[in-house]
Amino acid sequence: MTTVGFVGLGAMGSRMAGRLLEAGHQVYGTSRTQDKAATLVSGGLVWCATPREVAAAADMTLSSVSDDAAVEAITSGPDGILAGLGRGDVYIDMSTIAPSTSRQVAGRVRAIGAQMLDAPVSGSVPAAEDGTLVIMVGGEEATFRTAEPLLRVLGRTVTHIGPNGQGLLLKLAVNLNLGAQMLAFSEGLLLAERGGIDRKLAVEVMTDSAIGSPMMRARAPLVLDLPDEAWFDVSLLAKDLGLALTAGRELAVPLPGATTTADLLSWAAALGYGRRDIAALFEVLGRTATSEVTVSNARA
Amino acid sequence: MTTVGFVGLGAMGSRMAGRLLEAGHQVYGTSRTQDKAATLVSGGLVWCATPREVAAAADMTLSSVSDDAAVEAITSGPDGILAGLGRGDVYIDMSTIAPSTSRQVAGRVRAIGAQMLDAPVSGSVPAAEDGTLVIMVGGEEATFRTAEPLLRVLGRTVTHIGPNGQGLLLKLAVNLNLGAQMLAFSEGLLLAERGGIDRKLAVEVMTDSAIGSPMMRARAPLVLDLPDEAWFDVSLLAKDLGLALTAGRELAVPLPGATTTADLLSWAAALGYGRRDIAALFEVLGRTATSEVTVSNARA
Amino acid sequence: MTTVGFVGLGAMGSRMAGRLLEAGHQVYGTSRTQDKAATLVSGGLVWCATPREVAAAADMTLSSVSDDAAVEAITSGPDGILAGLGRGDVYIDMSTIAPSTSRQVAGRVRAIGAQMLDAPVSGSVPAAEDGTLVIMVGGEEATFRTAEPLLRVLGRTVTHIGPNGQGLLLKLAVNLNLGAQMLAFSEGLLLAERGGIDRKLAVEVMTDSAIGSPMMRARAPLVLDLPDEAWFDVSLLAKDLGLALTAGRELAVPLPGATTTADLLSWAAALGYGRRDIAALFEVLGRTATSEVTVSNARA
Amino acid sequence: MTTVGFVGLGAMGSRMAGRLLEAGHQVYGTSRTQDKAATLVSGGLVWCATPREVAAAADMTLSSVSDDAAVEAITSGPDGILAGLGRGDVYIDMSTIAPSTSRQVAGRVRAIGAQMLDAPVSGSVPAAEDGTLVIMVGGEEATFRTAEPLLRVLGRTVTHIGPNGQGLLLKLAVNLNLGAQMLAFSEGLLLAERGGIDRKLAVEVMTDSAIGSPMMRARAPLVLDLPDEAWFDVSLLAKDLGLALTAGRELAVPLPGATTTADLLSWAAALGYGRRDIAALFEVLGRTATSEVTVSNARA
Repeated sequence: MTTVGFVGLGAMGSRMAGRLLEAGHQVYGTSRTQDKAATLVSGGLVWCATPREVAAAADMTLSSVSDDAAVEAITSGPDGILAGLGRGDVYIDMSTIAPSTSRQVAGRVRAIGAQMLDAPVSGSVPAAEDGTLVIMVGGEEATFRTAEPLLRVLGRTVTHIGPNGQGLLLKLAVNLNLGAQMLAFSEGLLLAERGGIDRKLAVEVMTDSAIGSPMMRARAPLVLDLPDEAWFDVSLLAKDLGLALTAGRELAVPLPGATTTADLLSWAAALGYGRRDIAALFEVLGRTATSEVTVSNARA
Repeated sequence: MTTVGFVGLGAMGSRMAGRLLEAGHQVYGTSRTQDKAATLVSGGLVWCATPREVAAAADMTLSSVSDDAAVEAITSGPDGILAGLGRGDVYIDMSTIAPSTSRQVAGRVRAIGAQMLDAPVSGSVPAAEDGTLVIMVGGEEATFRTAEPLLRVLGRTVTHIGPNGQGLLLKLAVNLNLGAQMLAFSEGLLLAERGGIDRKLAVEVMTDSAIGSPMMRARAPLVLDLPDEAWFDVSLLAKDLGLALTAGRELAVPLPGATTTADLLSWAAALGYGRRDIAALFEVLGRTATSEVTVSNARA
Repeated sequence: MTTVGFVGLGAMGSRMAGRLLEAGHQVYGTSRTQDKAATLVSGGLVWCATPREVAAAADMTLSSVSDDAAVEAITSGPDGILAGLGRGDVYIDMSTIAPSTSRQVAGRVRAIGAQMLDAPVSGSVPAAEDGTLVIMVGGEEATFRTAEPLLRVLGRTVTHIGPNGQGLLLKLAVNLNLGAQMLAFSEGLLLAERGGIDRKLAVEVMTDSAIGSPMMRARAPLVLDLPDEAWFDVSLLAKDLGLALTAGRELAVPLPGATTTADLLSWAAALGYGRRDIAALFEVLGRTATSEVTVSNARA
Repeated sequence: MTTVGFVGLGAMGSRMAGRLLEAGHQVYGTSRTQDKAATLVSGGLVWCATPREVAAAADMTLSSVSDDAAVEAITSGPDGILAGLGRGDVYIDMSTIAPSTSRQVAGRVRAIGAQMLDAPVSGSVPAAEDGTLVIMVGGEEATFRTAEPLLRVLGRTVTHIGPNGQGLLLKLAVNLNLGAQMLAFSEGLLLAERGGIDRKLAVEVMTDSAIGSPMMRARAPLVLDLPDEAWFDVSLLAKDLGLALTAGRELAVPLPGATTTADLLSWAAALGYGRRDIAALFEVLGRTATSEVTVSNARA
């Protein structure tokens, strides 16, 4: 069994570390605060003071943090992961960050004789718990082969996409679709409802038709009854779309649909929906349809 | 067995009329040109000179034509369906037209003591042939009950949505999603490919993820290899989105995603893709990404 | 001097009626409430109980109301303008409404042997007071010639654009530009300011450059210091853009810029800016740029 | 009289160098090809083999090239401007490039004891010839003071905007408006024309109204009769908008109007209008309005 390190024991990271422990691995870990890690520690996780100590103790170090700045913070400096990596070690970052940022970190990892993979995941907390995530991996083929068995503990599909950064790029391509589907579903549902069709019936027929993706079918109940706690919130999707749009500018790829979706997410946040599940887009869209402006529109 | 009329024996209509014949119904029919109807006539269809004669001969008259103007043409005037309908007859229009147009025709049908349903279908030629269409029906509940057995010969699901026009409105809501999904999929795929990811691999991972709707999974091969013959062409989807946007204006529902998609379809047509399958959006989007303009963009 | 009628003595109408009185015309008038008309009555305006009485007393009847529904209300029914018009009378509607609505009313006016002009104005309260409005007129050439001297009391330019409805259509074309200019100016200014440039300096250089339209130069102080009272509010511009978008759909003219502007106005209203001057777009745009979402974006 | 260097003697640069010669300055210059410089050389310009030689011979070196890559090419390497700059020298780049690129070059210039200004210009060839450009300058106040007299030979207004990069940022803010105004004008004009209004009359009334910016009034004849030779072509404006959108992403400023305009410019280029004047947007927009798709729309 590989000795594993895990940096970032938040909602996703703690579940993944838990699965690795259950699978029999020795796991060293750290996070910004220790309190949430209590259960993991009682389950066998060895708490370390710094990311450097985690990386020094483990053969393979994984991380799962919120954004580019956080990856920078846990990898750099005297207490960072890079300071703890040895020749031949493998560092796997599962955060969703800019492909270009990830490639830069990978270059620094390579410079010290170690290897890095970007391995962002598709799927949320329940999938992390069940080990049914979809994992898209960027980096060298050989490194991927080495890490694959470990990643299979976490994901139902683990695919090598290409060189460093390409796992992330494909993740952004997927999430761009997720946002656009959520927006289009909200538009169609609002159109139906304002035209007098029962909301539940419309959701049923729409998700049962050829446009009903697994994501939409799973989210349908949340659209009908927006929960307080989010599966995947507006500000996280907005972050991902921001990364996609930046990649689009770098690669000269026009992204009109993603731009439109990102705009709507910005307004959603401005209206106070930043921490609500993205199912909120239906409600947010309805906010403009009931404002005085659209009333004027309707009379016209 | 009900005596059935069918006006409009084009790609879709001829398949539906064929199924009704096979199911043992006596079918009277007409269309703009008689040549395409030869097979149906040899299968038992009784050819009529005008829509009026069809409606006069049948208990239930169905129609499937291209747009609002065509529905107007086959229903109005001395040779139109309305001139042939008797008290208690049922007229079922399966065309995709404006809900408001359909409601107007329904009013005129009601005025002569007959009943009308709008019953637009989701699904293309193969589904029409197999009788696996999804049929969304607007009109009175009792009329729906009367027509339901006949419609079940044509569709795998036949759902009563609400009063006249609501079958059409929900159909537009569905097709608005179809367009937005096709656009987002094209954006994601182009982003992946321009970032160096293999096109086939990207399609595979994307359609296998939570965003992979039945429509996207079915269309994936067409995106990889755009066929000469369309399943559903750019100009037809553009027509449907135009109807959705008009309905959106009438109901004061903002449709930013549908607007963005409709814009792209317009450019696709301007670039000569009007009769190609909507899978062409991937290629069309790539056209701007390779123009001199985006080259400038990339250098910047 | 022509005997003139005026229906709708609101912010704009009262100023126009005032100018007609000052020019020596006998003016009969009415409005939803009489209180605002006190000054006009003391200045010689003869108050009438209904629009019909106004039209019956006057050779030329003008109106200036808020929207399509209001025009319908003042023209139709036993107390409406049409009931008071005689053969050869002229009815001039200065409201900004749908060209198609105006053409319908014009048809009804023609049917009773009178004539109608649509004469929407460009310019706000001060221009109405000074008689420096820009008036775009639709209707028959001969009717225009008859009405021109009266309209010249109200506007610095009075132009015959074409048949009924075309004055309105050009007005919508102008206001579509007004909205797009306001949005683009806000975007440029926000970009400059967030990049560290002094807001006043940016406004100065921008309005002094080739993009500085009279509208932008006049509105610059309002952008720097948003007033409580609006010159032209968000919901009114949204109404005009709604009319433009509907006309665009009818004429199959793509209006991507106007659509984008209309979307922003909807969000502005949803955020509570419906009654603020359109200069508020700068502030509204800044609302999304400071939300948690854009913070995420920035870190990315 | 200052000894002046000029790198990049294209359409703009040659005119600016010509004015500096006329003003009595000793001018050293170079460009990618020498042929276009013949007139300048006969007017007194001293031709140099490399940008380095120009910078070495001059007290103040100006440059005007097409994009970020070109600025990189003329400043870097053994033959670049930086290799020729001495302590206390001033380098003024008048190209329109990314503010971030310009700031990077400025840092390298500072490192060798010299100073850099970004001084992009608003105005085209005639304004360069007449010395009536609008020049927005970024860099240190003291350096600006030193360079101001020289820049006043070239521009009617020369304004210090702020630190390095801010001249460029404001230039992008201005050009973003230019594009949006051109698009909105095209939309309004197309709406008017398709509604039956005479194109010339519509242009006249629109440019005479409050939305008539100097840019629109100057460009009106080109909209009515698109010239073969461009004042400012689609691909150059697309480049500027690309820079603005990238700056918008970096500063987390939403730019919906600029995004919409940039999209249209991309389609214009895809349709073969890349080298046509931006007045072509009217014609380009009309291309979608006459395609089969919008015909379908109209029928709907």
